[in-house]
Amino acid sequence: MNNNTICAIATAPGGAIGIIRISGPEAISIADKVFRPIGSNLSLSQRKAYTLAFGNIINADNEVVDEVIVSIFRAPHSYTGEDSVEISCHGSSYILQQVMFLLTENGCLPAGPGEFTQRAFLNGKMDLSQAEAVADLISSTNKATHDMALSQLKGHFSNELSELRAHLLKLTSLLELEIDFSDHEDLEFADRSELYALANDIHQRLASLARSFEVGNALKNGIPVAIVGNTNVGKSTLLNHLLHEEKAIVSDVHGTTRDFIEDTTIINGIQFRFVDTAGIRKTDDIVENIGIERTFQKMQEAKIVLWLIDKQPTEAEIEGIKERVAGKKLIIVRNKIDLPNSSLNNSSSAKPTTLALTSVSTSRAQNSKLKIQDLQLVDISAKYGTNLSRLEQLIVEAADIPQISESDIVITSARHYSALLNADESLQRVIASMDLGLSGDLLAEDLRMVIDHLAEITGEERITPQETLQNIFTHFCIGK
Amino acid sequence: MNNNTICAIATAPGGAIGIIRISGPEAISIADKVFRPIGSNLSLSQRKAYTLAFGNIINADNEVVDEVIVSIFRAPHSYTGEDSVEISCHGSSYILQQVMFLLTENGCLPAGPGEFTQRAFLNGKMDLSQAEAVADLISSTNKATHDMALSQLKGHFSNELSELRAHLLKLTSLLELEIDFSDHEDLEFADRSELYALANDIHQRLASLARSFEVGNALKNGIPVAIVGNTNVGKSTLLNHLLHEEKAIVSDVHGTTRDFIEDTTIINGIQFRFVDTAGIRKTDDIVENIGIERTFQKMQEAKIVLWLIDKQPTEAEIEGIKERVAGKKLIIVRNKIDLPNSSLNNSSSAKPTTLALTSVSTSRAQNSKLKIQDLQLVDISAKYGTNLSRLEQLIVEAADIPQISESDIVITSARHYSALLNADESLQRVIASMDLGLSGDLLAEDLRMVIDHLAEITGEERITPQETLQNIFTHFCIGK
Repeated sequence: MNNNTICAIATAPGGAIGIIRISGPEAISIADKVFRPIGSNLSLSQRKAYTLAFGNIINADNEVVDEVIVSIFRAPHSYTGEDSVEISCHGSSYILQQVMFLLTENGCLPAGPGEFTQRAFLNGKMDLSQAEAVADLISSTNKATHDMALSQLKGHFSNELSELRAHLLKLTSLLELEIDFSDHEDLEFADRSELYALANDIHQRLASLARSFEVGNALKNGIPVAIVGNTNVGKSTLLNHLLHEEKAIVSDVHGTTRDFIEDTTIINGIQFRFVDTAGIRKTDDIVENIGIERTFQKMQEAKIVLWLIDKQPTEAEIEGIKERVAGKKLIIVRNKIDLPNSSLNNSSSAKPTTLALTSVSTSRAQNSKLKIQDLQLVDISAKYGTNLSRLEQLIVEAADIPQISESDIVITSARHYSALLNADESLQRVIASMDLGLSGDLLAEDLRMVIDHLAEITGEERITPQETLQNIFTHFCIGK
Repeated sequence: MNNNTICAIATAPGGAIGIIRISGPEAISIADKVFRPIGSNLSLSQRKAYTLAFGNIINADNEVVDEVIVSIFRAPHSYTGEDSVEISCHGSSYILQQVMFLLTENGCLPAGPGEFTQRAFLNGKMDLSQAEAVADLISSTNKATHDMALSQLKGHFSNELSELRAHLLKLTSLLELEIDFSDHEDLEFADRSELYALANDIHQRLASLARSFEVGNALKNGIPVAIVGNTNVGKSTLLNHLLHEEKAIVSDVHGTTRDFIEDTTIINGIQFRFVDTAGIRKTDDIVENIGIERTFQKMQEAKIVLWLIDKQPTEAEIEGIKERVAGKKLIIVRNKIDLPNSSLNNSSSAKPTTLALTSVSTSRAQNSKLKIQDLQLVDISAKYGTNLSRLEQLIVEAADIPQISESDIVITSARHYSALLNADESLQRVIASMDLGLSGDLLAEDLRMVIDHLAEITGEERITPQETLQNIFTHFCIGK
C-alpha cells in the first residue's frame, strides 16, 4: 500500500540509547547502504528476520558515524506489517541526526507523527481504536490509564463493537426478511417482537459503553479536585504536600495565590488534578478579585471540593459554599491542628456536631435546599503533614472510581464517545419508528447509520474520512 | 567478576520506544520469569544469541504489562561482556517503571550510573579511556566532539599510549642492562646515547598529546566568544541571532543586560560559547557596575572578542578595549547599517582606514604596545540579520581550529591531561638525571612513575584507585 520507506528517531533525546526506526519496502536495502557489519560478511539483506546485527554506520566518506546494533524484521511479521529495521545507536543527538541524514540521503522519507502506527492500521495489523490505544499506552502514567489503553489495544473494545455490528446486521437482515414477507401480517408481528428485543439489547450496550466515558475521561485527564477556603488557611501548603513538590508559592501574606495553580498527582494509581484557588475574601485588589471569581468557576468544574478551614466558618461562609458544592463530593479539612491556640482544638474529637458546620452536615436530609452527596471531615496539619494519608484516603473514596481490570471496556476517547452517542441516537430513532409501526424499509436508513457510526470507531475504510485519520495520527509522537 | 545482575532504563523519558537493559549472569533467566512469548514456545534461555523475541511482559498476577521485543546477547559477545537482554517497550513511564519493578522483584539490582560501561571495562571489553569516550560520544552534539569521542572509543589514544608504554619498558630494560654492566665505562656511554634519544622521543610525544588538550577542551566545552560594546549598540539582539533563539531580553532601555548571558551554538560543526556582556558605560547603578566588571572578566576568559559599535568609537573607548584584548582575536562589528542616519554609513566600504579604529588596526606592527593577533571588521544589521553569515565565517576563522579527523588523537579530558603532564614531568626528571650522569638505579623510580601515570589513563588495575573509577562512572547516565 505504501511504496515509500520512512524513518524516524523513536526515542526521546538525552538517553544512553537512541533508536532509529525504518519501515517500508526498501527498509532493509537502504539500511544496508549505511551499515558495515563487524565480525561477519553478511549484509542485512542476507540475514534472517528477527535477528540482530552488530556493525558500524558509515557515511558517504566511509567514516564511522557510530557502532550500532541493528534489528531486522520482515513483512508481514513486524509492527507496521512491512519490512522494518531498528538501529540502536549511542544516544547522542548528533549521531541520531547524522544517521537520519544518511537514511534520507539514501531514499528514506522522514516519518510524520504516528506514521508507523498508521501503516500498521492501513496494513490491517490493528483497527483504528487499537491504533489510538497505542498513543494512550505510550502516554499512560498510572495503572488506570495503562490498563484502559492496554485493554483497548488488546482489542476488547473492538470485539464488543464487532459483536454489536453482528447484532445490527442480524437486525438488518430480519428487517429485509420482513420486507419480503410484508404481506403476512402474523409474520410481521413475530419479527417485530424479536427486532424490538434485539434493538433494545444493542441500545443498552451502546448506552453502557457511552456511560463508561465519564469514568474513562476522569481517569485519563485526572479527577478534578478544587482546594477552596479563606485566605491564609494553608491551601498552597496543602497542595505542595499533595503534589510532593514546591509548586505553589507559600507565604504568610494574605492573598498570595492570585491565579489558580493546577497540577496532577497519582494517589492509589488514580490521577487527580488538584486546583489550588485564590483565597475567598473581600478585597479591593482587582487582580485578586479575578482570582476569586475563578475560584468559584474551578469549584464548579471539580468533582471533589476540599474546603479548608482553620476556625469555625461563619454562617455567611457556609452559605457561600453551600450553593457551589451542590452535586460535588465535599471534604471539610480542618487545618493547623498543630497550633496550640487553634479554635479547632476543642473539636479534635472530629465530630461535625461540635461545629457550626452541622448546618451543612444535616443538609444531607433529602428535603434540604443543599444537596451534598457526601460530606467528610478530617483534621490535619498541612505544615507538618499530619493526617494527610487519611485525607488522601478520603479523596480516593470520594472519587468513587470502580476497580478497572485489564479486560474491562472503558471509553477514554471523546471521538469514540461521540460516535457511540450518535450510534445510539440513530438506534433510538429505529426503536421509535418501530414503536410507530413504521415499515422496515423506513427503518433501514437509520439502522445503516448506526452501523456507520460504530464503523467510524474502528476505521472501516468506507466511512473513515481522511481528515479523521489525519487528526488521530498527528497527535502521536514521531517514531511511533 | 560480577555475580549480580543489573537493570536500568536506557532511554530518556518521553519517546515512542523505551529500552530496559539487563546484564549479568542471571540476565536471561530473570527476563524469562517476566516474559511470555507470543507465537512460539521458546523461552529466552532456549533461544540463540543475537536474536529477537516477541512477547508479553507479565506481572505476578499474570496480567500483561506490555507487548515487547526482547534482544538476547550472550557472554562474551555483548557490550558488557556478560549475558545481556534488552527489552524494547512502549515508551510509557508507567510501563518502564513496572518492568523495572518486576525485574528487581525477580532478583535484578538497579544499575548505578555508567555501571554497564564499568562492567565492560572490568571485563576487559575496553580500557578506561575508551569507557570515558562512551560518555563523551553520548553527549556529543556536533561533528568535532563526535569525532574526538569516536577516535578515543576506537582506541587511537589507547594505541598511542600502549606504544609509549612499550618504549618506556624498552628504556627500563636498557637501564637494567646498564646496571648489570655498570663496570664497563664504554658500554655505559653507548647505552646513554640511545636512552637519551628514546627518552626525548617519548617526551615529544607526551608534550604533543598534552598540547592537544587546548583544542580538545575548547571543542568540548565551546570556544568562548565575548560580545562587548557600549550600552544599546545591539549586543543582545546579535546574540539572539547567533543563538537562533530569544535568550536575552532586548529593549531600547540602556543597560538592559545587567548580568552576562551565556549559551552555546554550533557554527560549521564547532561549538561556540557566546557571552553577552553588560554594556560598558559610566553608571551609578551598583548592580549594573558589577555587570560591567564581569564584562571585563569575561573578555579575559574569551578566545574571541566581538566588539560591537554603532558609531565611531572615542579614543578613550579604544584605549579601554586595547589592553583587554591583548592576545585575543578581535572582530570589530559595526552594527545598525540599516539606519539611514548611521554614522557608519559613509564607511560602508568596510575599510578600517576610514575609521578612527586605524589606531587599533595599525597596532599589528610588532613594536606596538597593543598586541592584537588578528583584527577583522564586518558591517552588519543585527536587527535584520544582514551580513551575519559573513560574521559567522569570521568567527570560525578566528577560532582557528585545525580540521580534526576520526583518526586524530585529541585529549579532551582534564584527567588525561593531568596524567600526561605528570608523566612528562617525571620523564623530564629522568632526562635531567641522565644529563647529570646519574646511574641507572637512580632513574628507575622516576621511570616507573611515568609508566604509572600513563597507566592511570587506561586504567590498568594496579594503579587505578577505586575513587577514580567512582568519579568517572558516576558522571555517566543511568543505563549505559
